[in-house]
Formats: sequence, structure tokens, C-alpha cells
Amino acid sequence: MGLPLDTASLLDSLTRMVGPRATTARGVLEQHGRSEAYHASRPPDVVVFPETTQEVAEIVRLCARVGMPIVPFGAGTSLEGNAAALSGGLCFDFARMNRVLKVHDKDMDVVVQPGITRKQLNAQLRDTGLFFPIDPGADASIGGMSSTRASGTMAVRYGTMKDNVMALEVVLADGRIIRTGGRARKSSAGYDLTRLFVGAEGTLGVITEITLKLHPWPQAISSAVCSFPTLHDAVETAISIIQSGIPVARVELLDDVMMRGINGYAKLGYREAPTLFFEFHGTDAGVGEQAEFAEAIAADHGGQGFQWARAAEDRTRLWHARDNTLYAGMSLKPGARAMITDVCVPISQLAECLVETRADVEASGLVGPIVGHVGDGNFHMLILIDPDNADEVARAKGVHSRMVARAIAMEGTCTGEHGIGAGKIAFLQDEHGDAVDVMRSLKAALDPAGLMNPGKIFTPAKEMRS
Amino acid sequence: MGLPLDTASLLDSLTRMVGPRATTARGVLEQHGRSEAYHASRPPDVVVFPETTQEVAEIVRLCARVGMPIVPFGAGTSLEGNAAALSGGLCFDFARMNRVLKVHDKDMDVVVQPGITRKQLNAQLRDTGLFFPIDPGADASIGGMSSTRASGTMAVRYGTMKDNVMALEVVLADGRIIRTGGRARKSSAGYDLTRLFVGAEGTLGVITEITLKLHPWPQAISSAVCSFPTLHDAVETAISIIQSGIPVARVELLDDVMMRGINGYAKLGYREAPTLFFEFHGTDAGVGEQAEFAEAIAADHGGQGFQWARAAEDRTRLWHARDNTLYAGMSLKPGARAMITDVCVPISQLAECLVETRADVEASGLVGPIVGHVGDGNFHMLILIDPDNADEVARAKGVHSRMVARAIAMEGTCTGEHGIGAGKIAFLQDEHGDAVDVMRSLKAALDPAGLMNPGKIFTPAKEMRS
Repeated sequence: MGLPLDTASLLDSLTRMVGPRATTARGVLEQHGRSEAYHASRPPDVVVFPETTQEVAEIVRLCARVGMPIVPFGAGTSLEGNAAALSGGLCFDFARMNRVLKVHDKDMDVVVQPGITRKQLNAQLRDTGLFFPIDPGADASIGGMSSTRASGTMAVRYGTMKDNVMALEVVLADGRIIRTGGRARKSSAGYDLTRLFVGAEGTLGVITEITLKLHPWPQAISSAVCSFPTLHDAVETAISIIQSGIPVARVELLDDVMMRGINGYAKLGYREAPTLFFEFHGTDAGVGEQAEFAEAIAADHGGQGFQWARAAEDRTRLWHARDNTLYAGMSLKPGARAMITDVCVPISQLAECLVETRADVEASGLVGPIVGHVGDGNFHMLILIDPDNADEVARAKGVHSRMVARAIAMEGTCTGEHGIGAGKIAFLQDEHGDAVDVMRSLKAALDPAGLMNPGKIFTPAKEMRS
Repeated sequence: MGLPLDTASLLDSLTRMVGPRATTARGVLEQHGRSEAYHASRPPDVVVFPETTQEVAEIVRLCARVGMPIVPFGAGTSLEGNAAALSGGLCFDFARMNRVLKVHDKDMDVVVQPGITRKQLNAQLRDTGLFFPIDPGADASIGGMSSTRASGTMAVRYGTMKDNVMALEVVLADGRIIRTGGRARKSSAGYDLTRLFVGAEGTLGVITEITLKLHPWPQAISSAVCSFPTLHDAVETAISIIQSGIPVARVELLDDVMMRGINGYAKLGYREAPTLFFEFHGTDAGVGEQAEFAEAIAADHGGQGFQWARAAEDRTRLWHARDNTLYAGMSLKPGARAMITDVCVPISQLAECLVETRADVEASGLVGPIVGHVGDGNFHMLILIDPDNADEVARAKGVHSRMVARAIAMEGTCTGEHGIGAGKIAFLQDEHGDAVDVMRSLKAALDPAGLMNPGKIFTPAKEMRS
């Protein structure tokens, strides 16, 4: 595909500005069109590796002048095509803006650039006694995690990106640079712009700096695992634990299908039944007490083979199974790709949602292991498909749509932590109805030309109305 | 002030619609122009007591037609003139929309109407084992607390309204009714409209329903009190406790001036020195352990006379002093009114901010007791003034401005929990600079005629530019 003339002159300007850090090399473009999703690759026209906020702002102004779309890119681990260049355009890859700018250990916060990944960040925090707890599984970038409002296993204790981003620097569609929020732990000063940009998936501006809350490493950690006769028993155990006020740090559910995958993949001998993995953070005495409470509650719900561990190596062994769910799940159908989706429902509805979804995927003749952050009512299904088998893809899409419809009917959400991207636009409308028009109004106010990550979260209003 | 003709016909329509629940009785108007602030009364032209969301929506459409401003009113406990009818107009008093609509005990959430107060809500939750922890001191309405992003003593453990509002129903400026958020514990589905309306002080729409997170009553509660040689020692104690990961539920600082007020007001014999009040929530063993840790940390910082209590009546006695700060503070200058303000800074800056502010108020010859939610870096000062003494008022304003400027220079905020209202508009600009233009754009997108609580958060753009 040839570039339009003014785009060609844009490329000249970019090259003058950043030299080889602007590239149209095919391999690089392809790499930035792909993601971990099953969606097809949609490469941008040019990839730029900025080094400063000022560069980002200048380039955004150039793009605005020629009407070139802008797609911010972190680690490429999103699951709904969130960083696909659907209309081509310019991709900002933040790999070179990946520094820790300032650790405020006394205030327990840190200022970072968007390209740093969560593991890089935690490695750099090692000597501070503090850590950043949000763990979506993949080693995602902090910019990407902010933009998709990511969460993961520890959200039940430490919250999501919504709760842990304190402040942002953002380049707006017209090149203005603003700062939202601040370093105070709370504020009632005006509109909460931070929360508006967190989860906006780059459709309102480009995040160039993030201030994050940190948390003290707990004095002690204990882990536990326990299997249950039914999904219902496992979920009721999780509910009782949370209602008892036990400050569980993680509570993860793997269904029997996923446990079968784990056993095969990691050569383990777990009971192939719904299983909860727990982690408790606290004082030495506290984590022992928490594990004992949890064991008693699990026993009330038919839990079997409760094991718990405190030493680091024993905990690692216990959690090893949970840490491999993606590849273990994929191993259930060699050569398949995974349609990975997530929903989140009020926890009282979780058992029913899981059981119905489980039955639906089986009735559809598909393999779909489930793993859930059940303390939040959030679960993922990996629907294993051969992407070249149209019938299988159609059946998978059916299971997916019904799973989302079920979650929405239960007052839940079409995505707990993956975002809307390009993949869940219709579901957003189902879930939020007229409120989506309000989102559109905000988008129009901040990005009237529609150049910021177009085609994500919602289709442009003009397409909707045609 | 006479009503314009179309306003008169609006009144006819209102009376037809809601009968005596629309009133222009002088006493009622006056009552809705006042607040707990030192600001002068600014009554609306008419007060309506709606009973349903549909009524609110119809009345908003009527107001839009005649260009009548709309001010939502909860319990009238705001401190920055947040509910003053600066341009007259129609005030919605939500006293008759004060019901609990649905308790979901298993999901630990509740759906309420905006007029219910936090104490009414907790009274109705008594048998559920759950409670709503946000406690701004006053018995504010949940609608008002949502609109000002309120917090209070327990925010250090349970978060602010930002963290505890899950979903809203909102009537927009054109009468559309939307729902934001949902009952899932987390979601990545589109823009976070809930957080946009929380803290918007009614300037973007009228909140007509709120879904709140609830929390399990802790198994055990313990309280403690301890005095310190200096403000610095007290603050360092609070920082160390939080950095140790002790999940303190409240940590309140009263300075020596406030302790003098407490002793005089409540006939108590506390040491008149900076004093911390603590509350710990957890298991029986846990709250004992927490109090012991806190005592050891306090001792390291010169803490004296550490007392702790577990039985309810002993805890009440211990906290009695803290619960009376407003009247105790006022008692230091009989007949005075209080200019009540708050700022919030990164906790590493708190001691310096407190000490400088303390010195400034004393150098100004004013009495200004301080009470702080120090776990969050948030503190209040009650500057006691005779409102008829222009010199005293001017000096108080000087102290106030310098306190805010100091907080902003320390990367803090001009208000931790009171909101901007009419009183802190200039400070918002100082704090957020160009980001305020973005807030204005959002306001213009959702309320183009500028009828929703006008004159709050920012002056209209046209006044700014004139």
C-alpha cells in the first residue's frame, strides 16, 4: 500500500526529527500489527520510537496536520486488538521510554515512563521494600496496562490500574501536554481526568508518564491450594472468605479442564477438579491465621486435600501450576490458537455464570479451559480453535457471545480486564447503552478529528449512523 | 428578586407536576442557600423535592427550555459553597429520594437514592454484617458525598468515594438518563464515566441513584491514643506504621491547639501536645498485634502515654475527643465562625507542611486548630474568625492562600476532600493549569448551556477570557 503524498512528507519530517527511530521496515510494521489475540495482524504505516514527551507532542502535531491516525504501543500483549492499526497510521512504540524517573519511597509512589514493563519496574524496586502489585499475567508495559485498565491476580487485595495510577502526563490530540492528578493520596480538586485516561485505550490521548502507587512487601506470605467437588463449592468458598474479611491477596480458580491441561503440560498429579489457589499477605502470625480460616471455610464446602506453604520454594511449587495456565490450556489442543476472553460478574452470580458457560462450551463440542480471579467475580476462558476451520470459529464466537450476554444479564461486564479494543465494540453497546453516546461526546470533545487509536472502544459515530 | 416571565410559567408547570413539592417559600429558599461554610447564603429561586428519577429528568428538560440553572442539594454539609445557588435557579433537594433500593449482601454492595445520609444507610445495614465506611464527619448525603468525592477518617484503609462508588444513574443536562458502571467489582469496558461524575459537584449532571461497595464489619476493633513531643514525631510515626504494612483503619492527628480545645470543651485532661488517635480492624489476634506494632513504632518516635482499648465502651471513650473536633475547635474563640479548609500532600511533605502552616497562623495572630487524616497526608485547619472583622478575615484568607500554595508546591492538592465549589476555583487553576481547559471541554460537551450547578469548579470560560 503506497503512502499518500502528505504522508510521504510527514515521513521526511519524522526522519529529520528522529532519524532511524522512525521506520517503515516491513518486519517492524508487521511486528506492531500483531498481538497475543486471535485477531488478524493490522500493521501501521510507520513506527516511531520516541525518547521524550516533547518528541511525542511534536509528532502528534505533525499527524494532526496530515490527518494520520496514531496508535500507542507498549508490549503488544493486549488481547482485543487494542493496538492494531486498523486505519494504518503512525505507531508510537515506547520501548525507548522505559525508565523509572523517580522513586518516592517514603510516599510509596514511583514515576515511570510508559514503556517500562511491570517486571522491569519490580526488578528496579527490589531494594526499596516496595512493589507494584498489578499482575495481568503477561509482562505488559505500564503504559499499556494504564490504557486498558488492567488488573489480574492481586486485584482482590490491591485493586486495579484504576486504583493504582495516581497521575498521568498525556499528550492530547492537538499536541498539548497536560498533567492529571498529583502525588497526594487523595484529592477532590476538579474532574478526575486520571481515571478518564486510564482505560481509554489511547483513544483520548497518548500517555507519556505515569505515577503509580507502590505497596510495602508483606512481612510474610503464605500460599494454599485446595480442590472441590463442584465449581459451585469452590466459588462459595471464595465468597465466604471475602465476606469474612480475610484480606486474601489472591484467590484463583482453575476448572477441571484447566487442571487436566496443567497435569499434562507440567507433568503434575493434581486432582482434575475445580481448584482454588490462594495467597495471603501479612504478618507471620497473620498469614498463618488467614490460611487456617481459609482451610476451615474450604472444609465447610467440601474442599479436599488442602495444602499450604510458607517457605518461598514451597510457595513457588504450589503456584507453579497456576502460573502456567496459558500454555497448559493451549496444550489441550495441540496446534490450536486461543480465543481468549474475559467477563466479570457480581460474585453471587459467578457460580451460575461459570456452570452455564462450562455447559455451553461442552455442548458446542469445543475445548475451553477456565481460569478465574474469583475474588473479583472475573474469569477467563481460552476457547481453543483452529483459525482455518470456519465452523469451529463460528461455534467459538457463539460461545463467546453467549458468555458475554450472560454476564451482562447478571449485571456484570463484557470485560473485566482486557478492554474493548476492536473485539468487543458491539458488547460495549449492549452493556452500556445510552452511556456509550456520552463516551462518544467526550471522545469528540478531546479528539474531534478522530485520529487517536481509531476504531477502538466504539466505531465512529458516522459509521454507526450510516 | 422577581422571576422572569418564562420562569413564572416554569413554576406553573412544576406545580402541576409535583404540587407542593415545588416551593418558593422564603424560609425554604434561605435554608437551601446556606451551608456549613463561612460563605454568604445564596438561595435558589425555587426548591423541588423530587420523588423519582423520571421527575428529575422532566424538570431538567423544563429548565433547559427556559435556561434555568440547576443545583442539586443533599444534606447541606459542604464547606466550599458547593450547593450555593450563585445564579439562582432551581434546587433539587433529595430529602424524599432517600431510600435503600437494594442490598446485595453476598456481593457486598447496595443501591441507594442520593438523599440518604451515611448514618441512615448504616442504620439500615445493621443486620447485614456489612457497613459503609466513608465518614467525612458530618452526616452528609450519599449523593453529596459522591459529588464532592468525599472521604474522611477511614479512607486510609477503605478508600474514598472514588473507590467505593461502583455505579451511578445520572440525569444529564438535556434530560437523558444514563447508567454508568455496573455491579461487577471491576471492568475495562470503555471510559470510566462513574469516576467522571464522582467529584464533578453536579456540574455535569444530577446523580439520581448510587451503587456503593460495602465492607464486612471487622471481627474485632481496637483503638489507641498517644501524644508526641512534636508534629514531626507524630507524622513520622504515622509514616512508619503505613510503610510497615499495618492496615491501620484510622490514624488521626490533632495538634496541640486542637487538644487544648478538646480539653476545654469536653473537660478532659489530655496532654496538650500533638496526638495521634488510631483504630485497627481485623481478627481478635490481628488487632492486638497491630496495636502492639503501633506502640513500638510510636515509642521509637518519642510517643508518650500510649493507651489502647478493645471493648466498645473504652474505644468510645478514647475516640470521644476526636469526634468533637469541630465544636472543640470552635470553642477556642467563642462566637467565632470557622473558615474550614483542607489540603493533602505527599506524606513525606506532611510534617513540613504542618509546621510551616502552624507557624504562619500563629504569626498572623489567629487561632487555627488542626486535625488531620495523616495516613493520607490530608489535614484540615479551622481558622477562627469574626466575619465582621475585615482585617481578621483578610489575614485568615492570607493564611489560607499560603497553606494551599505550600501544598501545591509540595506536589499536593488544594483540597483533599472538600471539593472546589465556589471557594477554591483560583486554586484549581494553580494546581492543574492547562488540565483545567480539558475539564472545561468536558463540561462544554455535556452541558453546553452551562446550566448544571454554574459557577462551581471553574468560572465559565467567557468570564475567564473577558
